[in-house]
Amino acid sequence: MSALDQTLSKIDTNMDGALERLFELLKIESVSTDPAYKASCTKAGQWLVDELNSLGFDASLRETPGHPMVVAHHEGPEGAPHVLFYGHYDVQPVDPIELWDTAPFEPTLKEVNGAKRIYARGSSDDKGQLMTFVEACRGWKEATGALPCRVTILFEGEEESGSPSLVPFLEATAEELKADIALVCDTNMWDANTPAITTALRGMASDEVTIHAASRDLHSGYYGGAAQNPIHVLSKILADMHDESGAVTLEGFYDGVEETPDGIKQMWAGLGFSAKDFLGDIGLSMPSGEANRSVLEQTWARPTAEVNGITGGYTGEGFKTVIAAQASAKVSFRLVGKQDPHKVAEAFRKHINDRLPEDCTATFKEHGRNPATQLDYNLPELKKAADALTAEWGKDAAIIAGGGSIPIVGNFKRQLSMDSLLIGYALADDAIHSPNEKYELKSFQKGARSWARVLEALAQ
Amino acid sequence: MSALDQTLSKIDTNMDGALERLFELLKIESVSTDPAYKASCTKAGQWLVDELNSLGFDASLRETPGHPMVVAHHEGPEGAPHVLFYGHYDVQPVDPIELWDTAPFEPTLKEVNGAKRIYARGSSDDKGQLMTFVEACRGWKEATGALPCRVTILFEGEEESGSPSLVPFLEATAEELKADIALVCDTNMWDANTPAITTALRGMASDEVTIHAASRDLHSGYYGGAAQNPIHVLSKILADMHDESGAVTLEGFYDGVEETPDGIKQMWAGLGFSAKDFLGDIGLSMPSGEANRSVLEQTWARPTAEVNGITGGYTGEGFKTVIAAQASAKVSFRLVGKQDPHKVAEAFRKHINDRLPEDCTATFKEHGRNPATQLDYNLPELKKAADALTAEWGKDAAIIAGGGSIPIVGNFKRQLSMDSLLIGYALADDAIHSPNEKYELKSFQKGARSWARVLEALAQ
Repeated sequence: MSALDQTLSKIDTNMDGALERLFELLKIESVSTDPAYKASCTKAGQWLVDELNSLGFDASLRETPGHPMVVAHHEGPEGAPHVLFYGHYDVQPVDPIELWDTAPFEPTLKEVNGAKRIYARGSSDDKGQLMTFVEACRGWKEATGALPCRVTILFEGEEESGSPSLVPFLEATAEELKADIALVCDTNMWDANTPAITTALRGMASDEVTIHAASRDLHSGYYGGAAQNPIHVLSKILADMHDESGAVTLEGFYDGVEETPDGIKQMWAGLGFSAKDFLGDIGLSMPSGEANRSVLEQTWARPTAEVNGITGGYTGEGFKTVIAAQASAKVSFRLVGKQDPHKVAEAFRKHINDRLPEDCTATFKEHGRNPATQLDYNLPELKKAADALTAEWGKDAAIIAGGGSIPIVGNFKRQLSMDSLLIGYALADDAIHSPNEKYELKSFQKGARSWARVLEALAQ
Repeated sequence: MSALDQTLSKIDTNMDGALERLFELLKIESVSTDPAYKASCTKAGQWLVDELNSLGFDASLRETPGHPMVVAHHEGPEGAPHVLFYGHYDVQPVDPIELWDTAPFEPTLKEVNGAKRIYARGSSDDKGQLMTFVEACRGWKEATGALPCRVTILFEGEEESGSPSLVPFLEATAEELKADIALVCDTNMWDANTPAITTALRGMASDEVTIHAASRDLHSGYYGGAAQNPIHVLSKILADMHDESGAVTLEGFYDGVEETPDGIKQMWAGLGFSAKDFLGDIGLSMPSGEANRSVLEQTWARPTAEVNGITGGYTGEGFKTVIAAQASAKVSFRLVGKQDPHKVAEAFRKHINDRLPEDCTATFKEHGRNPATQLDYNLPELKKAADALTAEWGKDAAIIAGGGSIPIVGNFKRQLSMDSLLIGYALADDAIHSPNEKYELKSFQKGARSWARVLEALAQ
């Protein structure tokens, strides 16, 4: 029996104990946004420190201005790669509590449609997921007395409250945390049977613009017909941001946008994704973005310009015949590839300033500038990890992308010059951030087995 | 000495008493919106009834579900025209009271820059104005024992609170109130030395439109690029409402819009109106509406489409990357000439429905449908009244228009099939609805003299 097989077998026989350990962690009410749970957050961190030390890691709790970080190190074989595993031990608040079927901090195993599920706040996001890695390490240690890679672990306690301490901490500990590659376990499988690696996440540039015209709100009877209406100006400028084909018209907007390789596009086409279901679920029937792009391309691989909010004039009940002095919009751009968020924001401001009529001015407020992250599809670690997942699940691992952002990936890239492999076993119906959050027992067990395989694969 | 000269002389010698009477009326706190002043409103109505009865009118207080109406009749010579004079005895609230230099219900005569002014709530709007007509009648009666026309008077007590009882009252008393022409004293002079008759008022059609797309608010990372954004749809539709020349693009929008006669345009051009000052006062330098139209045409004689309010998505502090399920706008159209407000509203709804992309629906809420009122520039009474004003003020009466609405004019036209001559002696700086409302003593005295002249002119 190979070392890997022994490890996988160990993970399976350990399952009852693994569940007990996970339940212990899930019982700790580590809600990071609420100061009332500050001690619980520290307790969860300390629980992990103790757990990791018991496995032979050199683990410690590191204070921050917020909740503490857990950092742990374990040596690997001479010449083996060094991996940094990231997860977070904090959880979302439980409100609305009345919608929970079981108490959020009393983890409960229930069988639903023949599958066992772990119900608890944090079961999927992210305590269940991070414990898959801990249990994989336990399997390796108990089976072989060693880990196949050198492993550093970073568990954060502020992910659900904006990670205010993260960047300073990464900067201060860059030397200590820098590894060959990061493993991040905070994402989904493609579906219940198909493992996935998320290789691209869109970045974002977001701005608020206010168009100013008259020095005060005007009566539309007295001034209407002669006075500039900033809502008209704003509407026209926003309407001009897209052309008839749905493409964004900002100057240079597509600089740095790369075509998805054909092989990846083909894989996406083979995922069995149903645009009809995806849109039907939200009451829509037709993709409305760039023409001649699939919905997966539109949401994963193409940049967007979206008005997220608009306001001007009288918006209360009834009617007021006012011509507003100003109107404003919040606009965000999802970015892909090598698009420069600063250049995109500049192009947006230029788009507006170029179109301002006489007597109008525009003011801007910056809300964010984050580039996209895109893993090199030819990265050797990507292939190794995908093969390991395929071996565990008996189905080709899906190489997918995400339309949103996972800030830690950008932080690892920028602060630690390190790529991330985003591998997780959560499912779309896990109800993270919602009542009745759950994690499939299958995700937990096969997730641990998957990490055991990935660690061995990366060591090859 | 002619009857008119005797009357004018009487008005002048009566001035001290006239001021005392006006002050009595101004002291009555007839704030119509505030139920606390209900008794005061009735008291003001009763005061007017008593006053008119003492002048030989047959006056009475008429109950309504709100504040009472004052109706008074006085016979005229055989064959003389019948005029209906309208004013309102209710006033606006006095807040913010701390900004008043004198108590709002303690009328005070003050000299400012050599001109005497009456400071009090309602001095200009509308007690001072309506008393000019009462004092004109007193002058005629005391000088000649008769009035040159048959006169009916209607004083309302709910003008400042939306006139809820007016239409039912007009319908119920149509027979009694119907006259040859209405005289409405609730408008301004062109300037301190130039009397004016307002001959056109714009109408209005107003609607609220909501564009619906997805069945719920969406995360712009997950759905952005594929999901329809109703703010984009709304912006584009609103932007399409005007063409490059500032003209409104709705189908058939200009049907019923008539060109202002050249003679009237020339008169307007000669009024000394400064577009620079008018716009400069509100921080603008350029008229922004229809090209090749003067600002007076734009605001008096041309229809408009204005977005009075717009809202959609996240509009609070900070940023949320949401794609809204809906976005809405309040839109009003100022109408002129014979434009049909119902047709305009239909064209607006068609404009939207024609432009809705797949998956979007629009819902509408009606807020108002009022046609414009436009006096026939050749109406004999208009010329007679203008000549009378010119004789009193020594300066040609300005034949002007107004950009807003005065609902009573439309009501007289629709319920009583009667044109209105809008003649008033208020000035733009009277601060109506504001602290320190005032009425010029000159407006009061020459206003009374003007009505005396108008009554005689109409009788010719």
